[in-house]
Amino acid sequence: MPYTPDIKRPPRDLVAALAEVGTATASSELYKLGIRDPFIKGPVPFTRGRRIAGPALTLQFMPKREDLYGEDEYADREKQLHRHVLYHTQPGDIVVVDARGDMSSGIFGEMMLTYFAGKGGVGMVIDGCIRDAAKAFALDLGYWMRGTTPNFHTQTTLMPYAVNVPIACGNTFVTPGDIIIADDDGAISVPVDLAEQVLRLGSQHADWEDFSRLQLAKGGDLRRYYPLAPEAEAEFELWKRENLNDVASHD
Amino acid sequence: MPYTPDIKRPPRDLVAALAEVGTATASSELYKLGIRDPFIKGPVPFTRGRRIAGPALTLQFMPKREDLYGEDEYADREKQLHRHVLYHTQPGDIVVVDARGDMSSGIFGEMMLTYFAGKGGVGMVIDGCIRDAAKAFALDLGYWMRGTTPNFHTQTTLMPYAVNVPIACGNTFVTPGDIIIADDDGAISVPVDLAEQVLRLGSQHADWEDFSRLQLAKGGDLRRYYPLAPEAEAEFELWKRENLNDVASHD
Amino acid sequence: MPYTPDIKRPPRDLVAALAEVGTATASSELYKLGIRDPFIKGPVPFTRGRRIAGPALTLQFMPKREDLYGEDEYADREKQLHRHVLYHTQPGDIVVVDARGDMSSGIFGEMMLTYFAGKGGVGMVIDGCIRDAAKAFALDLGYWMRGTTPNFHTQTTLMPYAVNVPIACGNTFVTPGDIIIADDDGAISVPVDLAEQVLRLGSQHADWEDFSRLQLAKGGDLRRYYPLAPEAEAEFELWKRENLNDVASHD
Amino acid sequence: MPYTPDIKRPPRDLVAALAEVGTATASSELYKLGIRDPFIKGPVPFTRGRRIAGPALTLQFMPKREDLYGEDEYADREKQLHRHVLYHTQPGDIVVVDARGDMSSGIFGEMMLTYFAGKGGVGMVIDGCIRDAAKAFALDLGYWMRGTTPNFHTQTTLMPYAVNVPIACGNTFVTPGDIIIADDDGAISVPVDLAEQVLRLGSQHADWEDFSRLQLAKGGDLRRYYPLAPEAEAEFELWKRENLNDVASHD
Amino acid sequence: MPYTPDIKRPPRDLVAALAEVGTATASSELYKLGIRDPFIKGPVPFTRGRRIAGPALTLQFMPKREDLYGEDEYADREKQLHRHVLYHTQPGDIVVVDARGDMSSGIFGEMMLTYFAGKGGVGMVIDGCIRDAAKAFALDLGYWMRGTTPNFHTQTTLMPYAVNVPIACGNTFVTPGDIIIADDDGAISVPVDLAEQVLRLGSQHADWEDFSRLQLAKGGDLRRYYPLAPEAEAEFELWKRENLNDVASHD
Amino acid sequence: MPYTPDIKRPPRDLVAALAEVGTATASSELYKLGIRDPFIKGPVPFTRGRRIAGPALTLQFMPKREDLYGEDEYADREKQLHRHVLYHTQPGDIVVVDARGDMSSGIFGEMMLTYFAGKGGVGMVIDGCIRDAAKAFALDLGYWMRGTTPNFHTQTTLMPYAVNVPIACGNTFVTPGDIIIADDDGAISVPVDLAEQVLRLGSQHADWEDFSRLQLAKGGDLRRYYPLAPEAEAEFELWKRENLNDVASHD
Repeated sequence: MPYTPDIKRPPRDLVAALAEVGTATASSELYKLGIRDPFIKGPVPFTRGRRIAGPALTLQFMPKREDLYGEDEYADREKQLHRHVLYHTQPGDIVVVDARGDMSSGIFGEMMLTYFAGKGGVGMVIDGCIRDAAKAFALDLGYWMRGTTPNFHTQTTLMPYAVNVPIACGNTFVTPGDIIIADDDGAISVPVDLAEQVLRLGSQHADWEDFSRLQLAKGGDLRRYYPLAPEAEAEFELWKRENLNDVASHD
Repeated sequence: MPYTPDIKRPPRDLVAALAEVGTATASSELYKLGIRDPFIKGPVPFTRGRRIAGPALTLQFMPKREDLYGEDEYADREKQLHRHVLYHTQPGDIVVVDARGDMSSGIFGEMMLTYFAGKGGVGMVIDGCIRDAAKAFALDLGYWMRGTTPNFHTQTTLMPYAVNVPIACGNTFVTPGDIIIADDDGAISVPVDLAEQVLRLGSQHADWEDFSRLQLAKGGDLRRYYPLAPEAEAEFELWKRENLNDVASHD
Repeated sequence: MPYTPDIKRPPRDLVAALAEVGTATASSELYKLGIRDPFIKGPVPFTRGRRIAGPALTLQFMPKREDLYGEDEYADREKQLHRHVLYHTQPGDIVVVDARGDMSSGIFGEMMLTYFAGKGGVGMVIDGCIRDAAKAFALDLGYWMRGTTPNFHTQTTLMPYAVNVPIACGNTFVTPGDIIIADDDGAISVPVDLAEQVLRLGSQHADWEDFSRLQLAKGGDLRRYYPLAPEAEAEFELWKRENLNDVASHD
Repeated sequence: MPYTPDIKRPPRDLVAALAEVGTATASSELYKLGIRDPFIKGPVPFTRGRRIAGPALTLQFMPKREDLYGEDEYADREKQLHRHVLYHTQPGDIVVVDARGDMSSGIFGEMMLTYFAGKGGVGMVIDGCIRDAAKAFALDLGYWMRGTTPNFHTQTTLMPYAVNVPIACGNTFVTPGDIIIADDDGAISVPVDLAEQVLRLGSQHADWEDFSRLQLAKGGDLRRYYPLAPEAEAEFELWKRENLNDVASHD
Repeated sequence: MPYTPDIKRPPRDLVAALAEVGTATASSELYKLGIRDPFIKGPVPFTRGRRIAGPALTLQFMPKREDLYGEDEYADREKQLHRHVLYHTQPGDIVVVDARGDMSSGIFGEMMLTYFAGKGGVGMVIDGCIRDAAKAFALDLGYWMRGTTPNFHTQTTLMPYAVNVPIACGNTFVTPGDIIIADDDGAISVPVDLAEQVLRLGSQHADWEDFSRLQLAKGGDLRRYYPLAPEAEAEFELWKRENLNDVASHD
Repeated sequence: MPYTPDIKRPPRDLVAALAEVGTATASSELYKLGIRDPFIKGPVPFTRGRRIAGPALTLQFMPKREDLYGEDEYADREKQLHRHVLYHTQPGDIVVVDARGDMSSGIFGEMMLTYFAGKGGVGMVIDGCIRDAAKAFALDLGYWMRGTTPNFHTQTTLMPYAVNVPIACGNTFVTPGDIIIADDDGAISVPVDLAEQVLRLGSQHADWEDFSRLQLAKGGDLRRYYPLAPEAEAEFELWKRENLNDVASHD
């Protein structure tokens, strides 16, 4: 059985907090930290409404070469590296796959995905496809990917090549253990060493945002309310007091 | 603050009537009037089931050049032209954006879209993406676009360049004030000077269509019922009388 | 009126059984029989949750040449071959169209699709688009296609060319009468001569799969339960007995 | 041995005259006759400086299906249809191949091309590749194609399917016996029924063009010389007389 | 006749000096000045071995809309804007065309190009094609473009839209009067306000480069000679003296 | 300075013999050995007429991440891995680069290429571009690549990532030390363990090919001469004797 390394996982609460930050804010903050484009381009949300974050288990595919990966891989299933990346699953993990954008290779099928969900995995980001889609969508997992296919993973042009190594996914560089955030905007990779900073910057509360959103929804002037202009500060303070009173009166 | 022109809006009832006509009929009628392909190709419906029409406010992006659009644009927010196109919003307007098909630039985010909805805007046709998708989909707006992204609009390769000028969107030419119709088929641009003709042609009632649809749904012969063949006229007349009777009996 | 051949239809129960097999299993079995890639790549499921199978009626488009297919085709509607493929519809049929991946030609509209549904057709696999999408999705039909468009079929660059001839659809070869299976994974073409073998191979019951799925969902070891390892056989036998008892006790 | 039809060849002098007309003029004249785009898009000139015309022998490839075209085709070489299209070669013929834009299938190799040249073939228009390029370029043939590859024609995803049937090549419809013109601009297909008209229109001599070209090359005013303006007629007449004198004086 | 603005031309010697700098060095220096990617991506050199520089005359195409640009444009040739951009030609000018990457529109033909060359134009950078390629290549002009076609410029999907306005060409922003440099690496646009700095930075002579190139060509150590390492300074000084002597001895 | 491994080189005469075999024959023989597609798709010959073979030094690029590869890499040039792959150059070596098909990154420039040629390198296969093309083409090297660019290698979206590791180049898997063959058909990778077999199979002399080529060039029947039919054996034998006599008579 091939040896594949595990990953170092970041603290749970850091990951949970980044999920709250979301991809849009995190992407902006990463930009300020010098990362121009953390967006994993290609995979799109198939499970709309989900927002997840977790450390990346990575799986890399390469163009198939028949002398290296042939029919007999199926005799010894332990040679199949897409199984191995799943063996490492811990609750909260996300599997990220460089499947080279291939539209006719189904990286995982129903049984693998069931195992992954059973182990506590929360989602898949695949620059490619899965198979058994109907059953896959019934599992409690989020999917960001290019599409679906009935073919299995090594049927046409790919072979699994490495587990938990740095990969390119959707033309973005992902190292194992980076924190993936994925929601309706798509998936991004937060380099683990920058995660604390992204969180700190992303959480600095725009306490006026709730107020401004309300005004904008009522047809308020964008110039006055976004960002909050100095001449609207008094109005905002009043609103805050009234809301606080409201809140207080509930007690 | 840069000056950007407003648009001339067509009569409200003309626009409302074109929404009833829908994109498929309008596209056919435009073809008869000499417009070969009014279809805005690329943006797809993200809010299935909606049918809207409205005058086009236009926004044009260009490839970013850092000496012209750099970091300091954020110091002076009024230089950001994507804000300016929204300043022109009147109830019923549709914003059409040439975002050059870019998949890693989020043209608008939640706050901008909230403002647009608050002003009465009805939809967005973007040859590109938005960000803050989850919140954007919660607003009462229709979206025809290529996708979603966490990145902001000038993060990677684009800069906003002009407002309410003629643009190419999805490889179709759109002038400010043209009437956009968008539904589950996609979005089209109706040149405003042809709008009355499109409406007149598109509204000529195929009074037999309801009858024929019923027959076809029951397995009727396509040759007999679509288009209505002379030999089915009598049957249609009978059906009409019976339906009229029905209708009459309701009174 | 042009003559177009009908197809030879396979036995109903063979088709129904293949629908049960599904695309993922059938694709794997076809691979074992020497068919490397039966997947129709490009068309994607627009009616998620459906699984259909049926014999293929085929329709081929070619690049438009105006001296061969011009405006006056509309004078004589019987020259329009997209009508003719529908004339052959029998209950359970699937129409497969090589529309050359074109995104601005709507192969069928509402009335044609209503007729098709009325005749008992079950679905469309189109390497291209339909129009009148809102009404089309209200019909009881499955759609696997690239997208939607308001344009009609010969508006821009295509002309219908042949009915019930072998075609390439989504870069897969489809002969009239081949059995199409389509579900959330996509659509495949099963060469009719291989259909019995695919069924036989695909139906060999993995009786342990229900047991294994349960164990995996609970976090069981992939190595133990998928495929079922010899050391888990006893556990499986026990589970079977208990389930049988359960079932028996229901009687 | 499979039967494949021959083509009907147009008169030699018609073909020769069309070669003189060239693709740019012929394309314009076809447009006036209602053919919007006769250009075979994709194949580019690999043998710059050549201008040929000739009737089209056509060869169609389809996506490979292994049960229909397998290894044993090589046991019976007469099943290989790419040989058969060459059997029809007569002096002046051009082979046009729909190879589906494939970049990893070499439609013809050295020996086939040598045979084709030996029979008097003048060129190949392939929406795909050849192999043995170095030797192929040494033959007296013109090549318009997408590229070169070391692979043979059925090595990856294609199988030859039909000979001398209508095909789509480079997204243009080509019927067997159409007249192909190919030069440094690319290759076009002239529908054989329009060939006489294209010739007549294309040959109407712009007798002033030589004069105008000279003036433009010397920095003359485009408005005056192209097209020839009425106020330059006198100058042109003078030039003609002087040139005629010159020519005469040579005698 | 439509009015189209002329451009402001930079000093001749600045342009000539930038031609000496070449695209590779200028691109690097622009990067240091904050311009990330000045490369006009898509157009490739068709006239290998040329290196030119000159101010940009710009021409913009848009998707064709038949009510705005129809057949009768040919009645009044002065409406054809591709003529107008050429009217502005002065010796040393380069025409840059946003032809939207279109492969079936020939922006200029022989007569237009002859006029351009006659006026002293030096080259064309077109994100699209020309026609009459054989004759065009015989003129003393450099061409950077996507390809060639027999079609004329408005035959299929484009219409000329503006002259000497800012355009996007090959996904790079080009303003009229910017200095284009083009050679075997491709074409770049140097913003005219940065041109002096690019020249100054690009011309700082790496006087050791000739020496290092010689050593590398003989198999010298890259670490020692590129860039010139301190420990090779003495060797370089010796080489310089010897070369100076050589040169001197020639006198 | 980072450590990068060297490669194991195959025997010189094996490599030289494979160069004689050429890519077309080697590709066919690899197919017979089970390798379906050894063709490196994307890079095309820029130095027509060359045929080279040699062991692969490999260089892998990844999408740029600015925290890992920033400006200061230029302070310490030894961190630049594209230099390191060249340090390993031995006479006859070929550098193969996975540059991810990028069109705006110039992997190597003039000085690097001069060093490579000085060390005896024979060619480059790059799924991407070089810069300083004019000077590069003046060196005695063969180039198979996608194009040229003025940009340097890390200017836009790439960073060098690894040297002499297995890579994907042009969607083909290449391991360091594999034998690359490249000629006018393109470049292929011969797995080093199969090289002897490819040579043996590829060299089995088709002694009748010279005879057949002559006959085909004269218009001989393809069925008779390719492959050589039994009924042409006598003619071939006669030809051989005459040629032998000829040869003999030269002595």
